[in-house]
Amino acid sequence: MKIPLLVPEIREYLAQNNTEELKEFCETNSPAMVADFLSALEPDEVWAVLQSVSPQLRAEIFAYLEPDVQKELVEKLPREQLARLFSDMSPDDRADLFKSLPEDKQEMILPAMAQAEREDIRRLSSYPEGTAGAVMTSDYASLPADITAAEAINRLRREAPDRETIYYAYVVDEKRRLLGFVSLKDLILAHPEEKIEKIMHQDVVSACVTDDQEEAARKIQKYDLIALPVTSPDGALLGIITHDDALDIITQEHTEDIEKLMAITGPHEAGVYLHTSAWEHFRNRVGWVVALALLGLVSGYIVQNYEGLILQFGILATFMPMLADTGGNTGSQSATLVVRALALKEVSVRDALKIVWKEFKVSLSLAVVLSVVAFGRVAFLAKNSIPAGYSWMTVGLAISTALGLQVVTSTLLGALLPLAVAGMGYDPAVVASPALTTLVDITGLFIYFATVKLFLWH
Amino acid sequence: MKIPLLVPEIREYLAQNNTEELKEFCETNSPAMVADFLSALEPDEVWAVLQSVSPQLRAEIFAYLEPDVQKELVEKLPREQLARLFSDMSPDDRADLFKSLPEDKQEMILPAMAQAEREDIRRLSSYPEGTAGAVMTSDYASLPADITAAEAINRLRREAPDRETIYYAYVVDEKRRLLGFVSLKDLILAHPEEKIEKIMHQDVVSACVTDDQEEAARKIQKYDLIALPVTSPDGALLGIITHDDALDIITQEHTEDIEKLMAITGPHEAGVYLHTSAWEHFRNRVGWVVALALLGLVSGYIVQNYEGLILQFGILATFMPMLADTGGNTGSQSATLVVRALALKEVSVRDALKIVWKEFKVSLSLAVVLSVVAFGRVAFLAKNSIPAGYSWMTVGLAISTALGLQVVTSTLLGALLPLAVAGMGYDPAVVASPALTTLVDITGLFIYFATVKLFLWH
Repeated sequence: MKIPLLVPEIREYLAQNNTEELKEFCETNSPAMVADFLSALEPDEVWAVLQSVSPQLRAEIFAYLEPDVQKELVEKLPREQLARLFSDMSPDDRADLFKSLPEDKQEMILPAMAQAEREDIRRLSSYPEGTAGAVMTSDYASLPADITAAEAINRLRREAPDRETIYYAYVVDEKRRLLGFVSLKDLILAHPEEKIEKIMHQDVVSACVTDDQEEAARKIQKYDLIALPVTSPDGALLGIITHDDALDIITQEHTEDIEKLMAITGPHEAGVYLHTSAWEHFRNRVGWVVALALLGLVSGYIVQNYEGLILQFGILATFMPMLADTGGNTGSQSATLVVRALALKEVSVRDALKIVWKEFKVSLSLAVVLSVVAFGRVAFLAKNSIPAGYSWMTVGLAISTALGLQVVTSTLLGALLPLAVAGMGYDPAVVASPALTTLVDITGLFIYFATVKLFLWH
Repeated sequence: MKIPLLVPEIREYLAQNNTEELKEFCETNSPAMVADFLSALEPDEVWAVLQSVSPQLRAEIFAYLEPDVQKELVEKLPREQLARLFSDMSPDDRADLFKSLPEDKQEMILPAMAQAEREDIRRLSSYPEGTAGAVMTSDYASLPADITAAEAINRLRREAPDRETIYYAYVVDEKRRLLGFVSLKDLILAHPEEKIEKIMHQDVVSACVTDDQEEAARKIQKYDLIALPVTSPDGALLGIITHDDALDIITQEHTEDIEKLMAITGPHEAGVYLHTSAWEHFRNRVGWVVALALLGLVSGYIVQNYEGLILQFGILATFMPMLADTGGNTGSQSATLVVRALALKEVSVRDALKIVWKEFKVSLSLAVVLSVVAFGRVAFLAKNSIPAGYSWMTVGLAISTALGLQVVTSTLLGALLPLAVAGMGYDPAVVASPALTTLVDITGLFIYFATVKLFLWH
């Protein structure tokens, strides 16, 4: 967020070269808030303000700046300053920033950094996007099992200022295999002479570097963790994912889910609507829209096929859009509920029968209500447009039966399709809303004309 | 989640009355995991297992059981045991459970509890659903400003085991007004004789009890907090919201957003798809479905109005469903992106012009592609169904122009409608997908027939 509130004051301090006031401003507000205020300034001004504070605070505020402001700054900074900034950033933030830089900039920075940091950046940026490895930080506190609580507190006191969280410390053996964890609370409450191995919890919940990031975030949510340790496939501790990263991951996955529901493809990172170019927006949407438009032509063929019926009963055309809309809406509703319940692991594919039975009952009730509405519409407003030789009641009955069948069919299709896709191991969200709407258009029109023909064409 | 994995083993221990093994099982696994295993048992068995552990651990495991299992247990427990269980639960969990009980059960429990707890439950359950007050816990650590770091650590050590989190302690004056906070990390790193008022951070981010719960959760996310203090309107500290609650709130709000997008009303609590009765599912969906079905009849009137045109050019009916689908899809896409960007505060209503301009460029590109597809379809497959006296090119041009206009209009409507609704202070999600699809059906058919008439009817 860009907050232009303090821009005049900050500019005045800058003009006066009043570093004392600028420092005071940065230190008394939280880094996230300072970043919001600074985002409304020009990049040069932002950097000038950041010069007034300690390198640590500078890196902390920088990490909260919006990605586009960060990138502009990085473009302008000389190599030495950039390397210093990278050194002071937290390992996960700097690996993310590093990955977003163009290759020549990456090549430029690395040699200017200390070897340990260079390797850390290389390692953290090597995990594929979307895995637990790509979001973890290497900045955690670890302890051996054979020291005492008092020694552990002293050790944390020495190492703490650099660590992302010291509220959990991980207990590892000499091969860095994860044995357990102790919370700072445990250490404070324990007898100072008690050994870590006696205090530590062995029921440690962890993720593997190759796990999906959402799975890792859900573990943090489920077990109410402040941090989740991430291990290699053979159990060696490699990093942690902190609770604040879990919130960001879940928000990002939500955006991805919602966009998939609406047939929008592409990477779904947060904070990008206005930063994404029109061309990219176009590319993310065009595929499905064209595919579904082609599928929509199939509905057209069905309409064409029953042209004779429409010519005889003009009233049928009147109800066509209502039938298509209603099928799309009821199908999308059941699909959305099932997709969401699957995503939250409330239901699994094995519950298919229970789900279908529930949706069948729901759709039957919806069908009754909608059929009555359609019948009422024919009874009160369309009696005049019934051709001679037919009773309005037969026409009304035909249309409402067709609508009822359409509602039941599309609701069940909406529930079954995501289940089937999930059963095949794909993400069920892709078949929801638009694809389903187009599909139930086709089945709906077919049901409509077949039913009406059965009732009326004799 | 119900995990039936250990059911046989647990039943055997129960049959043997082997409380040692049961206790061991509950203590070596995390409470959330134990709850998963127990959920697959009958309520009587669950309670029998829980009898084997300390009251604190019992309450902790109980809090992780699924809501329906909790309710079944509560129904069966005698008053004294129930009151004991309530006393040991964390304040926010027990207030939630209390609110979900029938009134007679509520009346029964309260007198059996200590006065302080009774008042705590009454107070926490008095805040309206959806506010920060309703999700906060009264279980936080607070400190006066004038003690030393060493005294503070001792105080936390004494009070800590009962507190939801001791990683942040809140500094309050004698009227419980919030002055600042210290983290346990600050206390550990500070000189033991340093006064709290020197160590504490004064830039404390807080929420008001009446704030929306999502706003509070977003603050936790934005400022990377472990807990957010909640104050009364006059600044007195009333409780905290912890990081794990923020994850649950954001997941719940997301379910709500997705369901609103699909025109499903009703309360949107997590974990309820299978527990919600078919009747309730029906009630949550019927309103919008019927309203939109009635609106769909308007499209019908438009079709009826242009019957003459359809009779002359049969090919027009073939393209009708494609036109409606494409309008619905492109409109839903832009609406979804705007609704999501608004929800994440990436954009505000003031960005309307920028958004419309971007969507205009996107829709123009989509329009060109789809028009080419439609023209191609006429050129290659429909030359025979053009009536004498008309060139297939004119017909193709008419249909593709109409489709292009429809794509641009519906994309812009999809972006503008949520912005307008948000501008009026309502939740933009309600106008997305189904309502929009039905609306662009109407505008689309109107555009279609008007354009085609302009090209062909001479």
